[in-house]
Amino acid sequence: MFHGIIPPLCTPLTEDGEVDTASLERLCGFLLDAGVHGLFVCGSTGEVSQLTDRARAAALRTVVGTAAGRVPVLAGVVDTATPRVVEHARTARELGADAVVATAPFYVGTALPEVRDHYRRLAAAVDVPVVAYDIPSNVGRKLPAELLGELARDGVIAAVKDSSGDLESFQRLLDATDGTGTACLTGSEKLADLALLRGAHGVVPGLGNIDPHGYLRLHRAAGDGDWDTARREQRRLTRLFAAVTAAADPARVGPVSAALGAFKTALVLRGVIDRADTLPPLLPLTGEETERIATCLADAGLLPEPASRT
Amino acid sequence: MFHGIIPPLCTPLTEDGEVDTASLERLCGFLLDAGVHGLFVCGSTGEVSQLTDRARAAALRTVVGTAAGRVPVLAGVVDTATPRVVEHARTARELGADAVVATAPFYVGTALPEVRDHYRRLAAAVDVPVVAYDIPSNVGRKLPAELLGELARDGVIAAVKDSSGDLESFQRLLDATDGTGTACLTGSEKLADLALLRGAHGVVPGLGNIDPHGYLRLHRAAGDGDWDTARREQRRLTRLFAAVTAAADPARVGPVSAALGAFKTALVLRGVIDRADTLPPLLPLTGEETERIATCLADAGLLPEPASRT
Amino acid sequence: MFHGIIPPLCTPLTEDGEVDTASLERLCGFLLDAGVHGLFVCGSTGEVSQLTDRARAAALRTVVGTAAGRVPVLAGVVDTATPRVVEHARTARELGADAVVATAPFYVGTALPEVRDHYRRLAAAVDVPVVAYDIPSNVGRKLPAELLGELARDGVIAAVKDSSGDLESFQRLLDATDGTGTACLTGSEKLADLALLRGAHGVVPGLGNIDPHGYLRLHRAAGDGDWDTARREQRRLTRLFAAVTAAADPARVGPVSAALGAFKTALVLRGVIDRADTLPPLLPLTGEETERIATCLADAGLLPEPASRT
Amino acid sequence: MFHGIIPPLCTPLTEDGEVDTASLERLCGFLLDAGVHGLFVCGSTGEVSQLTDRARAAALRTVVGTAAGRVPVLAGVVDTATPRVVEHARTARELGADAVVATAPFYVGTALPEVRDHYRRLAAAVDVPVVAYDIPSNVGRKLPAELLGELARDGVIAAVKDSSGDLESFQRLLDATDGTGTACLTGSEKLADLALLRGAHGVVPGLGNIDPHGYLRLHRAAGDGDWDTARREQRRLTRLFAAVTAAADPARVGPVSAALGAFKTALVLRGVIDRADTLPPLLPLTGEETERIATCLADAGLLPEPASRT
Repeated sequence: MFHGIIPPLCTPLTEDGEVDTASLERLCGFLLDAGVHGLFVCGSTGEVSQLTDRARAAALRTVVGTAAGRVPVLAGVVDTATPRVVEHARTARELGADAVVATAPFYVGTALPEVRDHYRRLAAAVDVPVVAYDIPSNVGRKLPAELLGELARDGVIAAVKDSSGDLESFQRLLDATDGTGTACLTGSEKLADLALLRGAHGVVPGLGNIDPHGYLRLHRAAGDGDWDTARREQRRLTRLFAAVTAAADPARVGPVSAALGAFKTALVLRGVIDRADTLPPLLPLTGEETERIATCLADAGLLPEPASRT
Repeated sequence: MFHGIIPPLCTPLTEDGEVDTASLERLCGFLLDAGVHGLFVCGSTGEVSQLTDRARAAALRTVVGTAAGRVPVLAGVVDTATPRVVEHARTARELGADAVVATAPFYVGTALPEVRDHYRRLAAAVDVPVVAYDIPSNVGRKLPAELLGELARDGVIAAVKDSSGDLESFQRLLDATDGTGTACLTGSEKLADLALLRGAHGVVPGLGNIDPHGYLRLHRAAGDGDWDTARREQRRLTRLFAAVTAAADPARVGPVSAALGAFKTALVLRGVIDRADTLPPLLPLTGEETERIATCLADAGLLPEPASRT
Repeated sequence: MFHGIIPPLCTPLTEDGEVDTASLERLCGFLLDAGVHGLFVCGSTGEVSQLTDRARAAALRTVVGTAAGRVPVLAGVVDTATPRVVEHARTARELGADAVVATAPFYVGTALPEVRDHYRRLAAAVDVPVVAYDIPSNVGRKLPAELLGELARDGVIAAVKDSSGDLESFQRLLDATDGTGTACLTGSEKLADLALLRGAHGVVPGLGNIDPHGYLRLHRAAGDGDWDTARREQRRLTRLFAAVTAAADPARVGPVSAALGAFKTALVLRGVIDRADTLPPLLPLTGEETERIATCLADAGLLPEPASRT
Repeated sequence: MFHGIIPPLCTPLTEDGEVDTASLERLCGFLLDAGVHGLFVCGSTGEVSQLTDRARAAALRTVVGTAAGRVPVLAGVVDTATPRVVEHARTARELGADAVVATAPFYVGTALPEVRDHYRRLAAAVDVPVVAYDIPSNVGRKLPAELLGELARDGVIAAVKDSSGDLESFQRLLDATDGTGTACLTGSEKLADLALLRGAHGVVPGLGNIDPHGYLRLHRAAGDGDWDTARREQRRLTRLFAAVTAAADPARVGPVSAALGAFKTALVLRGVIDRADTLPPLLPLTGEETERIATCLADAGLLPEPASRT
């Protein structure tokens, strides 16, 4: 179920901050037409931590409906602690998610046995595969490979999404889960080729929202063992990522506003979604920053008709 | 409104993990009888990050009802980002909270202008005083005194709860908010006397759940300028805190399980609440750890009849 | 031996970066005339990590000679690991230091038993009291109170200089070393009154280079139990510290250049030393920044004749 | 000059803690016979931060003599600040080093312009190529690719040794220094194949002390574009690294004692050097831990005759 290119979907918004389901359907269509292998809704790229429960449900319902069983739908159930995560997971299950993606608890400090207990309770509470979401930059801790290996062997988790960007620990994860059937996915936009060379089962790249064809080409090259082609495609994607995320002024907004604002702006410029707004506290990009992103896209050949952005 | 001793209430639970409103009423009564100046519900000590929305509402409703206007009720509205925090704040307002207590956004990284925007949007969205909750250990950032001073001058925030334990920055906070009418509260159990000497308007001590009389004596001594008495009381309380929080095995549980488990266990042993359970991922204390806490309380003269704990 | 106000001396430099022994003698004289209780040479404020071994020796020799036994001279022996620290300590002993001040090892990561071993080996290698220097911002770790208590009981250390700014852990240190005769010194410029209220034996304030009289007044008030006077003096000193260290542009230089540059500039303006230069990688203050410091000093009444700085 | 496999040499010691020059000569011979492309003396693996200046000189003199011009000799000049680093660099130059390897300043906090100034002053002070040593775990900061690119373009640095283990930033480094002739070396034992695939010019693996042939095979496969062979060799080396560094008890010693103790123990077991001692505060491995390493080596086929270790 968990393999290939699985973009973490942006969540398009209406002018009044609600989920723009029509735009979200078009985004799903754009990605499915490109050939992605799965859809991840309510991830960090999807502003899960900014979305109210109602908005999360709206997004998930839309994606499940659009996917219509063609590819698996993974739903983020990100929240601070077990009771809240279990509630999200039950809702996600009811709405048709094929798997739920959960981080370690955050906000309050926990010892490792408490993290273990968290995943075991979650898996026991819902009848849907659990994906462990390892995102130390947001959660403040790294999930140790040993713990993930244990949870994999015991059938508690079905996959791991590793957004740490650390390939040394990714190798330890591959080794620790080897033979368990657990999928190891990388969340790195910039190391996808190397993660695949090491044996990653899939890639969950935020940048895949705006250039899914690039990641699919990379994935095909990797599948063919053509590492030079994979590297060249990766290099192109890395440059695109660097260019679009550099558009925003770092004194004004943080890296998340910069990245998500860039992805949404690019999707607007490519005609996929209607508006580039993000939810507070994320701040929108300025007109000048939007122009910079348009230039990046044109340079990357992702805006075939220059006239389209004037 | 914000002054004196304002304990952050533990949230007692029933056997099936619901809010035990009868125990919570008794806890409020115990603290009000002792003479506390306010009640803070749904703080970190109240397991706000473990409570579902429904449980948060149950706790707040109970505390507002029990306080019955005798002291102000502050309600924690802790969540990852602005839309979710605004929702909690609106609910808290409807349920009768006198103020809402909100951290900076967490989980995704933000730049300072985004934090500023977060508080401004929150204050604009709800007709209730906003208290800025500065708890870097949980949120991953320290709220700068300059930003808090600006928000105070502009009437965005009515108070600050500083749980950083850093008196250098607390002094900067006092200076930055001087003359604005903004209350500066310390969340430190162990530096209350020193914070009051510097000019703190109040103390929000988790340990105040189990020994409110000690903090009230400390507060009175500070009010009298009797810093030697304040220091002696503080020293006693610091030792009590160290003793009860050392009961749990740090290889098994984190510091939050250790502290909250100790507070709830002590409240059970003192006959205030029924059960010492905490919510997952926090793990309960063992029987042996409970015994250690009983010994601490007896040593501190908080269990007048030794027979009561057998 | 370790009590009262013990300034960590700035190390004045000649135009070609050598120790300016004449200026250093004047600085010692200035501080001794003010009535300080000890002199700490080659501390972080003395640029110990910038000084070559030859320069360290020159500074120590000068200070020992000028002190002439009137007050104890503490010598920093800051370096990465035990063999290097032992060499510095032996040299310091030969040059007449009354005590050596040593951090935990840094640069390579160590476990706690290795830190313990470090101090035990150092104490065994030199016949001079060892002061443990707890400066987490520079060393990357906090020395636990339990370890310091053990080293104190075993006679390995004679004092602790706590530059963490954390009064919760300072209280634990006082408790852990209680009854051992070990002196607990705070390195905080801004919490001296509170540390003394808690029982600190002395203060090692970098700002004491430029306003020793203020710290001596604070210390006397604390000795008299007059905490209101102590607090007022502390408040004045804190504002002076904030003002002079804010003179430099943080985009250009780090906080250490800002602080040491400010101290040396103030000493030049007060006529105590000849030049304000620091050693690389620290960058010198600009003319404009120097003017700001002159204004601060004039405002603080430390430049009695305004004409003197034109 | 900087390419291929350049092991960071362990520094063998005599019973009384001096450099064991005979063992060091044998280690150099062992590595040169294997075909390494350079020798890096006084790196972190060489215990540079534990070595006195005299010991550093003894080690460097020995290695320069043994290399006899056959391969370049890089000398670590690790110290806290510019004046001390310049002194080490001048000595290294006099003793025949072909390049000096310098970290950013540490112990005191610096702003980026101060780090830039540090490297510019170092390069101006010595007539020998400067290698920037990026080792955030030890120094507390990451050298930004932009700064390294600028220093490369200006001829300040001739190479970078990246020991961060972060391949995202390594790619940025490759891009930032592209076209400048600056060599980009990885210090990662575990990501050598991937770094080479990305374009690394060389590898500086601590584990190369004990299995240089493995890294040379990996390097040859990479040169042939045979990434599957490179990956298999890497995998074997990663397992060997994990096994030998897991021999020591982490409650007793830190990761550096574990790794360096393992490398030296393996070199003793392989008959290359005489003793496995490290310098304080690093603690020696126990007999039991030594046995574990012997088992690892035997399993890896690096102890051809099992009898040899009894």
